[in-house]
Formats: sequence, structure tokens, C-alpha cells
Amino acid sequence: MSIIVQKYGGTSVGTPERIKAVANRVIQKKNQGHQLVVIVSAMGKTTDSLIELARQITDNPAPREMDMLLTTGEQVSISLLAMALMDQGQPAVSFTGPQLGIQTTSLHQKARILDIDVSRIHQALAQNQVVVVAGFQGVSENQEITTLGRGGSDTSAVALAAKLRATCEIYTDVEGIYTMDPRKLPGAKKLDYITSEEMMEMASLGAGVLHHRSVELAHKFQVPLYLASTFSDQPGTWVVNGGNEGMEESLVTGMTSSRSDVQVTLMNLPAGMKSLRRIFSEMAEKEVNVDMISQMMNGNQRMYVSFTIPREDVQVARSLMETWHAEDDAIHWDINENIVKMSIVGLGMRTHSGVAGNVFAALEGAGIELKMVTTSEINISWVLAEEDEAKAIQAIGQAFELAEEE
Amino acid sequence: MSIIVQKYGGTSVGTPERIKAVANRVIQKKNQGHQLVVIVSAMGKTTDSLIELARQITDNPAPREMDMLLTTGEQVSISLLAMALMDQGQPAVSFTGPQLGIQTTSLHQKARILDIDVSRIHQALAQNQVVVVAGFQGVSENQEITTLGRGGSDTSAVALAAKLRATCEIYTDVEGIYTMDPRKLPGAKKLDYITSEEMMEMASLGAGVLHHRSVELAHKFQVPLYLASTFSDQPGTWVVNGGNEGMEESLVTGMTSSRSDVQVTLMNLPAGMKSLRRIFSEMAEKEVNVDMISQMMNGNQRMYVSFTIPREDVQVARSLMETWHAEDDAIHWDINENIVKMSIVGLGMRTHSGVAGNVFAALEGAGIELKMVTTSEINISWVLAEEDEAKAIQAIGQAFELAEEE
Repeated sequence: MSIIVQKYGGTSVGTPERIKAVANRVIQKKNQGHQLVVIVSAMGKTTDSLIELARQITDNPAPREMDMLLTTGEQVSISLLAMALMDQGQPAVSFTGPQLGIQTTSLHQKARILDIDVSRIHQALAQNQVVVVAGFQGVSENQEITTLGRGGSDTSAVALAAKLRATCEIYTDVEGIYTMDPRKLPGAKKLDYITSEEMMEMASLGAGVLHHRSVELAHKFQVPLYLASTFSDQPGTWVVNGGNEGMEESLVTGMTSSRSDVQVTLMNLPAGMKSLRRIFSEMAEKEVNVDMISQMMNGNQRMYVSFTIPREDVQVARSLMETWHAEDDAIHWDINENIVKMSIVGLGMRTHSGVAGNVFAALEGAGIELKMVTTSEINISWVLAEEDEAKAIQAIGQAFELAEEE
Repeated sequence: MSIIVQKYGGTSVGTPERIKAVANRVIQKKNQGHQLVVIVSAMGKTTDSLIELARQITDNPAPREMDMLLTTGEQVSISLLAMALMDQGQPAVSFTGPQLGIQTTSLHQKARILDIDVSRIHQALAQNQVVVVAGFQGVSENQEITTLGRGGSDTSAVALAAKLRATCEIYTDVEGIYTMDPRKLPGAKKLDYITSEEMMEMASLGAGVLHHRSVELAHKFQVPLYLASTFSDQPGTWVVNGGNEGMEESLVTGMTSSRSDVQVTLMNLPAGMKSLRRIFSEMAEKEVNVDMISQMMNGNQRMYVSFTIPREDVQVARSLMETWHAEDDAIHWDINENIVKMSIVGLGMRTHSGVAGNVFAALEGAGIELKMVTTSEINISWVLAEEDEAKAIQAIGQAFELAEEE
């Protein structure tokens, strides 16, 4: 009998009614002849409420105690789902992360999974039980309760699937991976398949469906990953390992658009690697995550450098630049917060040249000016003014046939 | 340095503000030169909300999964209290029951503590930390999460104090032990001391302040027990081990009055031990907790038997009596639900005769008729009609000086 690992997110288990519906879906799958391991997140907005409780106590909670607090959310969900399964006649048993021995590093709130002892899972499966596991949590070498940070429950699910050599099905409130967020591009196509390489690019570029980390893990351990909606029976999207030559590849698989970055421009920097190295190493020390970079000379001795950083890091960046300006008052800087970062992703770009040209042509045709462009092997990213976002999405969507025809 | 174990109930940690106030009290005590171990219950009505969540899922939750669910309540409180302590500059660390190795039997929802590994507590105390422990929970031999049932957090606190050879201070929303519930007897006196024997009688007779089980444990392990209010600085009540000859004993220490029982009367039973044994063994098999018993002959061959049972067991008792009546239709029965069970408790009764006489005189003077009386070494209990409760409390309170004079 094959093992299937299913993961249900917070919205999917947001109320007792929904938990019962999830139990029903799990049993359906079980009755098709599979063994089921189910990972759940905390119900609905539970995690947010717990964070708010902590905030009312202190502005600076100890990460260890935050983990102690937040892991209760999933513990509630697993017990309720196990009850719902048993209420529908299906034997079930729930396990916390520590109970199952989901061994992690000891970095609270950002722990990484080291290993999982699946012996208790195998025992329970052999007794015809559905195994319900708390996502997002584990235990360190010192028996401390840890959490995995952002995307943690997806990561728990993929890691368990890897260890159990199982398929991993992730259920959320969206029906799969689309060429583009359908709220932004009406008619955006749902993909039946996407390669994990493309998915990793999409995830790190801001498509919020699956966290980068879990896709990476699935890729590394060759875990078949399937993404679909808890609330419908529509087929979802398979994330497959790349290089499947038989699969018809489109040139561009998907598109993302994100307002979570700002553009920083430094003017009249002394030319040369030395000042570039200094800028980016000081940014890195402060954990400012620099993404797109473009640089050009400004006369012989001076240059411009422009780059994007996450919006939440603006204050840190500002204080760094004030230091540089204080040391060399020729240096000036500008922060543009009204920008959008857009990208297209597709394995097909590897073998087809001219995609960038098509992007420029489409945007030019729509009368849009680019502020910055970078390209990598399987993606092209660009920055434009916020007010041009909708027009650009239309133009690119049309140029690469990302939406259904009307 | 002496170790003090403090326990704060659900009302005491009901809001973030109250948790901060508890942290403040803990630090005050610490600064007097003690090492502190603090047990907390779940915040306010959390446990009730979790039970209601489970009820929305199933009418018949598995006890194992209920324990998984309910233990999250205390886990939230301990993390928040540890945060509040640290926020006020006091190093602190929280532990769940399983994490600390509070070993229990494996009977879910009613587990009993077997042993506690206090090595992690000693380590933390040595590092100047306040140790915050989740009450009510433990872990069985099979690494299952268990709960201790009613009075569980008090039991956790006393057990930890026994193991640490510490004093145990229990903080609730009442200021100590009174001669009688002050809502029922205005002016009831707060006791500075009560013996653990008297306290055990009071607890099992329905004085809801401390659970019988924790008093018993404190008595067994000679743990000094102190009961006071979280919300005031008034001195509370010490529960001391009996036989302290130097201590001025009053004849009657306290009084209880409870509406949680009903009176059952069986008429025209065949006389003799055989039918008595049968009645009470069949009641015991059904786990009906029979309390006061009185029996009298009715002619030569037949007898009356009257006894009290908990109100929630009426249905079970009724069906037993229907069986007996079906076998011997001379047997009739009556259930009186409008009764009150009252008791007075006092070690002094051991050496003073005539206390029962004083009770009867006081009640007779108030024109109250008794339905049943039993006496033991240190208590006298009686049953009367519900409508006589207030009058009886007044009369007994006056006769034994249980209230302050106006």
C-alpha cells in the first residue's frame, strides 16, 4: 500500500465544520487503498492571536518561549482532526512534533529539520490508523520545543514524505499554480504541471502559494508534490522534477508581480569593486536581502548603483547610506518606494533566445518604461512604476499567452 | 536558599495584565531570597473553550486526544508567564509536563503522578532562573501526553513541592479558608491555620477551595501548604499537619453546605446484611458514590435504607432500583432532590463529646427538622430540606461562633 502525506493549511481547518470536511476527504483517500499521514497547521488565525497575546506581555519575547506558545496552535488542530476522523469511524492518532521525534537544529523560530523518526508512524499505519502530525514544530537535541519558521508546515509535510518515500499533497484555499495570480490577470491559466526549478523561482519571486524552502526540499529528495484546493474537487498542479523531455514545455510558464520591494539608487560612488564590495557586504551584515542589482559608470571616477531590497529593510538601509554620505559627501542616494517587481519564469528560456526581446517589445508597445532589468537562466525580472503594473500584466499576459482567450 | 513552589489558578492568569501582575508577585518573593518554581493553570475559561471545540467535533472524544487538546491551555500560560518575568528583568524558563518528565500512569484524563525528574528544575534554579511549569499534565511510560483530572494543577504543585522539599503556596481568587463560604454566612471567619485532616474533610464535603487529592498528598509528604489570594496582600491560611498540641484548637473549625447530593430511600427491603451488601456493591459497580447511609428496621423482616448520592448519578441509581423492584415488588423507593447536605468539621470533636447535642439543640431552636445524620471522628453531617438551608447556617454559625460578631 502506498503512503500519501497530505497537508492542510490553517484556512482548511479554520472551523470545526471544516475540520470535519477535511476528515471526510482524508477518509475518501484512505478508502482508495492508501495509508494516510496528515499534517495540519493551526486553525485559521490562531497563530496571529497567540502572537498578539505575547505582544500584550512584552515587545521582546524570548524565541524559546514564542516556540512554546505557538506550537500549541497545531496541537489543538491535530487533536480535533483525530477526533473528527474517529467520529467518522476511522481509527486515528495524533502526534506533536516533539512526540514524533522531528529532530531539528536548536535555532528557535527558525529551526531546520535534521531527521525524523518514522517508527511510530509505521506502527500506527500498520494498525490501520490515520496518523495526524502537527506541522511547523520539532524538538532540538536538548529536548527544547522548536518551530520551523515561515513555510514551516509545508516543510514538515515534504520532509515526512521524503522520509516515508511518499507522495506529498498540499491543500490550501487555491486550486493550484497559475501562470499568474488570477486576481491580477483575469483568465490566468491553471498549470497541470510545473517543474520544481520553475516553482522555486516563482516561490522566491513572490508567488505565495508554496514556500521556496518546501519546494527545494521536494526537489532535493525527489518527492512528488501536488498542490490543490481543500474546498473543491478540481484537479490541482503537480510539481515535477525538471528535464522531463517528453513534456510539452511552453516558453514561459508563469509570471509574478510583487510590491514588497523598493528600489535604492546610490549616485556618485567612487568607481571600482572596492566600493561595490563594501556596499553589499555591509548590507549583508545587517541582513538586508539585496535582490536585483544594476550598475553604470558616471564619468571616469564615479558610478551609479541601483538595487532592490525588501520594503521592511528600508530603515536599516537608510542609516547605512547616511554613514556613507557622512564619509564622502559626493555620494547621494534616493529610495523609490512606488515600484513593482515583475518576473516571468520558464525552463524554455534556456533553449530559446529572444525572450527578453519579446518582453521589451510588449512593454514598449504598451508605452511602459522600465527602471531596471535582470535576467537569469530561467527568469527575466524587471522593475517599473507602480501605476504601470496593471497595464504591464495585460501586455505580458497577452504576449506569452498566459491567460485563457475571452 | 529555600525553594518555594507557587501555584496560580486560571482566574489569576486570566488576562495578559493579570499575568504581568503574577510575574510581579513572583519577583517580589524571589527578591526575598527564595528560589521560585511556579505552576500555572490555563488562562481563564480556556479549558472550557477547548472542551466546547471538541464537542463541536464529536460527542465522544477519545480521552487521549482530549489530553492532547487540553494540555495546550497550560502551555500557553507558561510561555506567557516566562515572557512576563523576562520582560521585568527576571530570567525564567518554562517547561511542559512531558518536557520535565512528570511521569504519570497512562489513564488519560485521570492520570496519577508516579514520579518527577527534578534535575532540569535544579539546573535552572542554579542559574538564577524562575522555573515555570505547566500544571495538570504529565507523560506516560509510552510518551503519551496525559492529564491529571480534577484538581490536577494543585496536585502538580504539591507533588513538585514534595519532590523539591519545598513549601507550596496556592493562589486563587479567595483569600484563604473560611469557617464557611462567606457568600452563605456573611461574616464567616478566615482561618489562619487549619489541620490537613480537617481540610481533607472540608474538601471532600464540598468546600471548593482546594481539591481533596492535593490536600491528601500534602499530608502524606508533609508539604507545608499555604492558601491565599492572588488579588490581595491579606494573609491567607496555612494547612498544617495535625497534632500540633500547642496550637489553640477551636471545637469546630468549619462548616460546609452543599446541594450536589440527593437522598434515596429504599422501603421494605428484606432485612439483613445480604440485601445491604447487594445494594451497595451494585451501586459501587456502577461507580455511584454513596455517601451518608442510615438504616432502620421496619417490622421484623423488612427495613428502610436511606443514603445520599451525587445528583449526576440519579439516572443510574433509578435504573438499579427498578431492577430490584422488578425482582421483589414489596420494595419501593423514593428520591428526594430538594435536600442540602451540611457538615461541621473540627479536630476538637475528638476530645469533646456533646458536639452533636449542640448541633441538634441549635437546629431545633431554629425549628428545623433533620432528615438524616451521620457522625465520624472529626465531623458531623446532616441532611435537611433545601428551604431550611439559610436558617440552619445562621443557627450553626451562631452556636459555634463561626462568624465575626456584628
